[in-house]
Amino acid sequence: MASFKPSGVITLTTDFGLEDPFVGVMKGRILSRFPTARIVDLTHAVPAHRPSEAGFWLSRCFEDFPAGSVHVAVVDPGVGTGRAIVCMVASGHALLAPDNGLLGALAVRHPQAPTVRLAEARLRALGVERVSATFHGRDIFAPVAAELACGRCAPGSLGERTQLEAPAHEASPTAPGSLAGAAGSASVSGSVVTVDHFGNLLTDIDARAIEHLDGAWVSVAGRRLRLQRTYGDARPGELLALVNAFDVLEIAAREGSAARTLAVGRGTPVTVSSGDLLAGANRL
Amino acid sequence: MASFKPSGVITLTTDFGLEDPFVGVMKGRILSRFPTARIVDLTHAVPAHRPSEAGFWLSRCFEDFPAGSVHVAVVDPGVGTGRAIVCMVASGHALLAPDNGLLGALAVRHPQAPTVRLAEARLRALGVERVSATFHGRDIFAPVAAELACGRCAPGSLGERTQLEAPAHEASPTAPGSLAGAAGSASVSGSVVTVDHFGNLLTDIDARAIEHLDGAWVSVAGRRLRLQRTYGDARPGELLALVNAFDVLEIAAREGSAARTLAVGRGTPVTVSSGDLLAGANRL
Amino acid sequence: MASFKPSGVITLTTDFGLEDPFVGVMKGRILSRFPTARIVDLTHAVPAHRPSEAGFWLSRCFEDFPAGSVHVAVVDPGVGTGRAIVCMVASGHALLAPDNGLLGALAVRHPQAPTVRLAEARLRALGVERVSATFHGRDIFAPVAAELACGRCAPGSLGERTQLEAPAHEASPTAPGSLAGAAGSASVSGSVVTVDHFGNLLTDIDARAIEHLDGAWVSVAGRRLRLQRTYGDARPGELLALVNAFDVLEIAAREGSAARTLAVGRGTPVTVSSGDLLAGANRL
Repeated sequence: MASFKPSGVITLTTDFGLEDPFVGVMKGRILSRFPTARIVDLTHAVPAHRPSEAGFWLSRCFEDFPAGSVHVAVVDPGVGTGRAIVCMVASGHALLAPDNGLLGALAVRHPQAPTVRLAEARLRALGVERVSATFHGRDIFAPVAAELACGRCAPGSLGERTQLEAPAHEASPTAPGSLAGAAGSASVSGSVVTVDHFGNLLTDIDARAIEHLDGAWVSVAGRRLRLQRTYGDARPGELLALVNAFDVLEIAAREGSAARTLAVGRGTPVTVSSGDLLAGANRL
Repeated sequence: MASFKPSGVITLTTDFGLEDPFVGVMKGRILSRFPTARIVDLTHAVPAHRPSEAGFWLSRCFEDFPAGSVHVAVVDPGVGTGRAIVCMVASGHALLAPDNGLLGALAVRHPQAPTVRLAEARLRALGVERVSATFHGRDIFAPVAAELACGRCAPGSLGERTQLEAPAHEASPTAPGSLAGAAGSASVSGSVVTVDHFGNLLTDIDARAIEHLDGAWVSVAGRRLRLQRTYGDARPGELLALVNAFDVLEIAAREGSAARTLAVGRGTPVTVSSGDLLAGANRL
Repeated sequence: MASFKPSGVITLTTDFGLEDPFVGVMKGRILSRFPTARIVDLTHAVPAHRPSEAGFWLSRCFEDFPAGSVHVAVVDPGVGTGRAIVCMVASGHALLAPDNGLLGALAVRHPQAPTVRLAEARLRALGVERVSATFHGRDIFAPVAAELACGRCAPGSLGERTQLEAPAHEASPTAPGSLAGAAGSASVSGSVVTVDHFGNLLTDIDARAIEHLDGAWVSVAGRRLRLQRTYGDARPGELLALVNAFDVLEIAAREGSAARTLAVGRGTPVTVSSGDLLAGANRL
């Protein structure tokens, strides 16, 4: 885990919302240990109890930050119970999260990323004490992130190497095969992971899993949509499918909300099929 | 008021919301005077016209920031009228707020904290001029916070020592006595101060006021709940009471919303009683 | 365009909302090029597809930041199509936006501000490459803002001088004349540009356009309101009109929501008339 050289940047991803001072308090604790930390909010609107959605976004965004950033993710319904906290190092970044499936999408994309399980003795040595039963974001994640980001401790020193215990909730595209195995398939299936501010439906279908499908059609909620390049390629109000800027398949409605138009949300199945296959099916 | 040594950190607490540029504009004015200020949002979702809720959060959070931080709180329905602006120094932090009850919870917990009333002549000397009638957050609070945070002026120099004029809206637990007097009581009453993002009900009942109540029961909205340690101690959906990470009594529903489950909100009465008392009552 | 000396401050104005990591990702890309950038959110709640509302706010707020700030505005329904991106320099600040009317309010108030159209060759020279079709905020605006803010490139070097192509959507007060021509008019008309967090209705009627109207009355949604100085001058719940801290006419309800009270929103016509005119009318 020698590949982490701190940049001084810390990102925060939680389900805390922004109405309460929870996020601000985490920043206060970080600044108390590392006064020149540069802290960036990734999102605090992850639905409570959907750790995998935090992991989806992290896996698609963390490399947009300077190498050496510390990414803290706290979607943690098991706070105060026996669940572990882990630190993964991937592409020169450190990721800190509860071991509850949150880092599953990271592990799929970075299968060799070393991971340690935070050890209580090590936390005590860092002065992480008087830990509450309900707010580890403030009492553990913030101080550990500060120590990592200012270079006073290395990821590898936080505990023993471990495998992520909890399996990823979200799979890579499930049928007819994994991302790696999809290369020869005539269709790839997945589901909607999140609905963004504009009502766009973001799926877990990676661009690489469908790039071999020429003239692909996307099936969702009983509709069949052609893959297009950008929103402006559709007519106002019209539904379209595209590979978005995060390299996943997205269903959108130009100047509208695909979620409202289709009346669907997280978990909705989506399938991408080659044009040829469908042409064949239509012939039957 | 010699105990304030600026850390360069400024926190902001308002009822401005985040939809409009009001908060951003305050930051612009701060950076114009103090280019390296580190500014943290505490919350901007205080309900309009509930200064005491801002004070509740501040009193529970300000010490999570580095000593020497300046905490600006603008929940200020009286803006542009004769209400004063005050600066309190507590535990080495400076707190800047309108004198409308906002700092009441601070005054209860820090009764010796010296407080000054900002003097117009002093503001003019700092170049605080062309003050609008409606946006003192931008025109007074931001520049004064910047001057305090960069060390160009001391809290004690802002005006004459004063007592907070407006009484605290929120009391410490009201029956059967004050926090200090509750030590021997068989029950302690208070009310819900705020409802957080998760629907948890946070009360003004301090942990110290109920720590002598063994096997305590919490009564709220016709329900009786056992005190527990953390959310995971309840079954999914189940209501529980706990002393939360801010050292106040909280009513929660595991993986759910206590506010929705109980259909209650701010101001709802809550009572904590010793198990013995209730056991006795049940025997009658 | 020699008047821009970077302050290191970048502001962000978008329609992205804060639920998703879009804004955070822009900050990550900025910090990757300019590690000590100080980034401030102005607003991310501009209604999708209302570029002119972003421009209204920017035109009223950008000078609250240190001279030499870079202001990025991305309300950009035409992303990925042929629309240009422009950089304007006004009052020593740089403003970066799509050429879709967003900067119209700036151009009205700063008609001499030089503007360039970003040239693809110049972007490539800055290493702005692998541009997605849907997220220019991340792929173009963020890196260009970073380069401007750290002083590695000057606004004038980004491309050729240009005139803003798209006309401003929002006009200066429309009847009976432009802002400049309103000096002798007995009434000035405009409309509601935005509704703020408190339900206040902010119009495009500039304070200077109505300052000659003594004892002015404001007509909106069938109501006639007297101009007042601040919210506290009205009774709780009462509607009032005032010139707000952004120097535009605003309709408010003390401790209430004017938008709800009047059941109106963006686009609602508003007229300001001199007291004399109305007195005359009443005499008929």
